[in-house]
Amino acid sequence: MNAPLPDHALPHSLTHLQPRPMPQAMLAALRARFGERCSTAAAVREQHGRDESTYPVTPPEAVVFCESNEDVAAVVALAAAHAVPVIPFGVGSSLEGHLLAVQGGVSIDLSRMNRVLKVHADDLTATVQAGVTREQLNREIRDTGLFFPIDPGANASLGGMAATRASGTNAVRYGTMRENVLGLTVVTAAGELIHTGTRAKKSAAGYDLTRLFVGSEGTLGVMTEITLKLYPLPEAVSAAVCHFPSIAAAVRTTIQTIQMGVPIARCELLDAHAIRAVNRHSRLTLREAPMLLMEFHGSEASVQEQAETVQALAREQGGEDFQWARTPEERTKLWTARHQAYFAALQTRAGCRCQSTDTCVPISHLAESIDESIREAEASGIPYWIVGHVGDGNFHLSYLLDPSDPAELAAVERLNVQMVQRALRLQGTCTGEHGIGLHKMGYLVEEAGEGAVAMMRSIKQALDPRNIMNPGKVFAA
Amino acid sequence: MNAPLPDHALPHSLTHLQPRPMPQAMLAALRARFGERCSTAAAVREQHGRDESTYPVTPPEAVVFCESNEDVAAVVALAAAHAVPVIPFGVGSSLEGHLLAVQGGVSIDLSRMNRVLKVHADDLTATVQAGVTREQLNREIRDTGLFFPIDPGANASLGGMAATRASGTNAVRYGTMRENVLGLTVVTAAGELIHTGTRAKKSAAGYDLTRLFVGSEGTLGVMTEITLKLYPLPEAVSAAVCHFPSIAAAVRTTIQTIQMGVPIARCELLDAHAIRAVNRHSRLTLREAPMLLMEFHGSEASVQEQAETVQALAREQGGEDFQWARTPEERTKLWTARHQAYFAALQTRAGCRCQSTDTCVPISHLAESIDESIREAEASGIPYWIVGHVGDGNFHLSYLLDPSDPAELAAVERLNVQMVQRALRLQGTCTGEHGIGLHKMGYLVEEAGEGAVAMMRSIKQALDPRNIMNPGKVFAA
Repeated sequence: MNAPLPDHALPHSLTHLQPRPMPQAMLAALRARFGERCSTAAAVREQHGRDESTYPVTPPEAVVFCESNEDVAAVVALAAAHAVPVIPFGVGSSLEGHLLAVQGGVSIDLSRMNRVLKVHADDLTATVQAGVTREQLNREIRDTGLFFPIDPGANASLGGMAATRASGTNAVRYGTMRENVLGLTVVTAAGELIHTGTRAKKSAAGYDLTRLFVGSEGTLGVMTEITLKLYPLPEAVSAAVCHFPSIAAAVRTTIQTIQMGVPIARCELLDAHAIRAVNRHSRLTLREAPMLLMEFHGSEASVQEQAETVQALAREQGGEDFQWARTPEERTKLWTARHQAYFAALQTRAGCRCQSTDTCVPISHLAESIDESIREAEASGIPYWIVGHVGDGNFHLSYLLDPSDPAELAAVERLNVQMVQRALRLQGTCTGEHGIGLHKMGYLVEEAGEGAVAMMRSIKQALDPRNIMNPGKVFAA
Repeated sequence: MNAPLPDHALPHSLTHLQPRPMPQAMLAALRARFGERCSTAAAVREQHGRDESTYPVTPPEAVVFCESNEDVAAVVALAAAHAVPVIPFGVGSSLEGHLLAVQGGVSIDLSRMNRVLKVHADDLTATVQAGVTREQLNREIRDTGLFFPIDPGANASLGGMAATRASGTNAVRYGTMRENVLGLTVVTAAGELIHTGTRAKKSAAGYDLTRLFVGSEGTLGVMTEITLKLYPLPEAVSAAVCHFPSIAAAVRTTIQTIQMGVPIARCELLDAHAIRAVNRHSRLTLREAPMLLMEFHGSEASVQEQAETVQALAREQGGEDFQWARTPEERTKLWTARHQAYFAALQTRAGCRCQSTDTCVPISHLAESIDESIREAEASGIPYWIVGHVGDGNFHLSYLLDPSDPAELAAVERLNVQMVQRALRLQGTCTGEHGIGLHKMGYLVEEAGEGAVAMMRSIKQALDPRNIMNPGKVFAA
């Protein structure tokens, strides 16, 4: 268990730090254009120099609160002229160090670009500014009978979700940001505005720039407007929990559900640790045993049929009877608890930070992927908890670690290496939905190979020749 | 109606011809490596210098029949060394001049790379060589209880389908090649092999190279292996036809079906002209009136429920009762007839070629998009027929023209310009599924804007600096 770590698995030292000091002329120009919307206050900079990762805070030199496409274009044009980095910022909920200003520069805060620009209910599309959060969007379209399903847990901005190719609980049925972004407005590294995609549901017109930007983590341009697919609210929605004698039994039920093609809308695994934290935090009384939290969408008849199928599969694996959340209020309570698992878990160990793994494997390998990871986690003695979007083969084993303890950081990193390498052996990916950021740059090379990463680097260089767009993330320049 | 055509709407003169003669040394090297698998016979070259477009045949200088990744890499490495164009070739069913050797060079025939390499039924994935056709794949996986839904009509190669981001009849439910390719093996412009994606259903690992290659029309590299999503064969499948008093009534029924979220699997419009051709060709007796040909997938109960919903919507629009194709044989007969509509129509005018438009618009604009196009087509006096994947907002108005008559070619091009410009005004795309090829390069600029096309050009230049990968397609270098 003490095999040497690969070089790339020691990111917490932030050896990537390569500050490029911002010229005074640039700061002066920002202040002239933006006045008080350009801040260099320590508190503001610190808030923009961190995310939910375990990295030390690494603040930008300035933060500009943009309110329009033109604002963003102006910041980037200045940054291009002065070769200064820019880092787009939504709500700061990313998990792999995406937002840290490892090369200094300007944080472009998009939270004030929070208007839902257009809802085309007849076409099931909406166009939003990048700072709109997913909860806000769903609130604003409530009266249309439509909803936007992608739900990574955090109330992230839709720009941030597009940038990390986010997914979450509903992805098993509705896809990820990859499948649900129709078009974008982007400020390029030269400070110019371009548009990608159209509102048509499909297109074969040229290179898929939309999907090149989705998941590019701010390294190719700043997405300022996003056109999204919406879905009719299902006629019927039912949620249920089901407890299992083991995690393996819950996972086997999931695998069979997917293989049978049941169009389940959500299929979440929680282990006993996660349930314990959730019970305390949200005053619930769920049994502290491996559990699937499921949701079914469709017509009344279809929901009933899906539920019966899955219930039969669960029973064969020793699952208990479904406990139904019958009212919208009960459902909301359960999902709110699920979404607060992260913060609930953080409260179970004083002063801890959470490091969350994020592998995703072909569904038939999910049991092996989880079982081995639990064995290793148990052996480590470090507190952990598991939630998983298991219908997609994706799960998070989250360690609660003392960020001031280098030994613990290294131990967790070693466990993460083992998990990632196992996922790659099982033909999976090092990250299902969190992205590469700083933390997984080495894993990306292991997964994609030097040739594919060299191709990514060529694209970056072509689109951002001065390396100003969130530099030092995804891969080394 | 005689407004001047934009410059880019006169492609049939093939002003793009810029042959780069192949050095003798390259031909000698190809012959040394490939022997009889390298052909310069006129008939072979001509077969590889055309597609289903109305362009004159423009043959490559040589055709190499590749049988492995290494074969493809060897051809491309030689081409890179000699700055000679290469054009990947599947079955030759593309529609916009994609395969024409406008700058000379070598056609890489992939039809012998036709092995299904791996079927992971438990994971709902398959990995195939690029020359496998969609019908072949479905034949070979028949015993697994799974199928690959994407169906552009032609029995195209899966490499060709990925290259043009194909879709077709099932896309309304299962998505297009964009949504159904998980990973690729690609020979880069330097003749190196890279792999993109994994078999995991989702990933947030780095730039989405998979989707950059899907739809790139051979201009960035040669896809040699493709990992695809498969789907469980539905428990129940039902197909029905329904006739309407007008195309508008059929379209309104479609729009409401989509807006209600009915998970219809296929929703095809045929006009009276298309039905007449199909009746003659396939000895059917369908009423020669606007018709929807629909298919429903799901459990028995769900299929029945979907059909009832759509039938009620149809009735409100004056649609007749559904006529059901109850057996698999009846269904196959209907869909075979639909797929042969293209060839059936070609037989209705001696010596004609077919030029098919391919706009796709947000669903609420579909009626306007089709109605106006029909008005213009009727006024032109040129024979035409319509089929449409109307559930996606995509339809094809296909003109049967005399390719030797420049006036008719120009008239059709003028009609196409009007249709495309209307689609763009309606926030749609110039091509839903056929791709840009030679024919739509100007339309791509109109749709995406100079800035976005410049970005595509930068990517092309970064990945293919000698401009050898299917040069002269998608955009001017």
